[in-house]
Amino acid sequence: MADLNKLMENEVFMAFASYATIILSKMMFMSPATAFYRMTRKAFANPEDYASFGKGENAKKLLRTDDRVERVRRAHLNDLENIVPFLGIGLLYSLSGPDLSTAVLHFRLFVGARIYHTISYLLPLPQPNRALSFFVGYGVTLSMAYSLLKNRLYL
Amino acid sequence: MADLNKLMENEVFMAFASYATIILSKMMFMSPATAFYRMTRKAFANPEDYASFGKGENAKKLLRTDDRVERVRRAHLNDLENIVPFLGIGLLYSLSGPDLSTAVLHFRLFVGARIYHTISYLLPLPQPNRALSFFVGYGVTLSMAYSLLKNRLYL
Amino acid sequence: MADLNKLMENEVFMAFASYATIILSKMMFMSPATAFYRMTRKAFANPEDYASFGKGENAKKLLRTDDRVERVRRAHLNDLENIVPFLGIGLLYSLSGPDLSTAVLHFRLFVGARIYHTISYLLPLPQPNRALSFFVGYGVTLSMAYSLLKNRLYL
Repeated sequence: MADLNKLMENEVFMAFASYATIILSKMMFMSPATAFYRMTRKAFANPEDYASFGKGENAKKLLRTDDRVERVRRAHLNDLENIVPFLGIGLLYSLSGPDLSTAVLHFRLFVGARIYHTISYLLPLPQPNRALSFFVGYGVTLSMAYSLLKNRLYL
Repeated sequence: MADLNKLMENEVFMAFASYATIILSKMMFMSPATAFYRMTRKAFANPEDYASFGKGENAKKLLRTDDRVERVRRAHLNDLENIVPFLGIGLLYSLSGPDLSTAVLHFRLFVGARIYHTISYLLPLPQPNRALSFFVGYGVTLSMAYSLLKNRLYL
Repeated sequence: MADLNKLMENEVFMAFASYATIILSKMMFMSPATAFYRMTRKAFANPEDYASFGKGENAKKLLRTDDRVERVRRAHLNDLENIVPFLGIGLLYSLSGPDLSTAVLHFRLFVGARIYHTISYLLPLPQPNRALSFFVGYGVTLSMAYSLLKNRLYL
């Protein structure tokens, strides 16, 4: 256990663990958001999901897509597409011994940008709010990838 | 290598590695399941995929969506949306020195719930089978996130 | 920091870090590719995205799906579905002390297969180019999972 404790004493790794947990928790919030809109707008993807709302021809109309539901699902998928690279590259970057303040700046910018991205997507805010927040998060991840490959490339 | 060996001697980390590998292997099974339904129900997403089934106007009808295929794809996407947070939060949780039996309980509940979720989605079982299995997996991940942020928040 | 430095001195882990960063960077490239096709083919998913292209009934036609855009999105989702298991299983496999040349062979095959998969999907190349590249990447991940569970199963 001694070595694990040392890993958790490493400040960059601790900071990464905290920010990664926060942004993953935010991403998880998209699932109940989708469920909320499916229930309130009565737009379901599976016949078994609306069984309690009645049966017959009338109930079949509930098997439909809804703008609001699809918007939350697109925001969720965009989260996945961007948070997965952040997790993978960020973990390896944290272990590569970067400067603490530089690393924390990366993590904060990413988490802030992705939260703003979700707000821009769900309200929605006019463009380029969503596009800019996307590019900030994207740039942060690329910057970590560049720093990792520059110092530590091993092919 | 000495330190790595110590990491693999850590029982919580070893348990996490085993359960994570099992649930990722289960998720990977969704890809051949999708391919199986696409082939047997002749519902393809790309023109090049049904080229061997013939050409011309008749073949174009194979470029369609099918209920069964879409159901497997939704189950696969739901896996991704839930297994990614489990992997990220679970890895950091495993390294934060939790009690072994508590940690293993978390991992077992998550893996069991996600396997039951897939069964409920694919058969399908009537609700609330799928909803309950979703919430068990969701709660396990949130419980690990809470334990991580409570003890180790570093922003 | 001593232990982290030792982690980054481990050759298998360093190789995994490099290949994982490369394949995640490739996956990230799919986002601007989608945006490029959305702009050039004028096929948007959100009303706020085409606001600068005009308003009224004529602009509403821009809210549509396009074969080319959907193809890039399917390639992106397939990347997610396959790179997430590679990241999780590959990280744990790297820490389990495998033979260096065997491990590097796994990583190279996976990265090569996924790059070829993207090329086959986007051009597109006739089948079975895409199917074969998919199965190579899939087999590599399963082989790492098998090696991990065989040596280190801890349930």
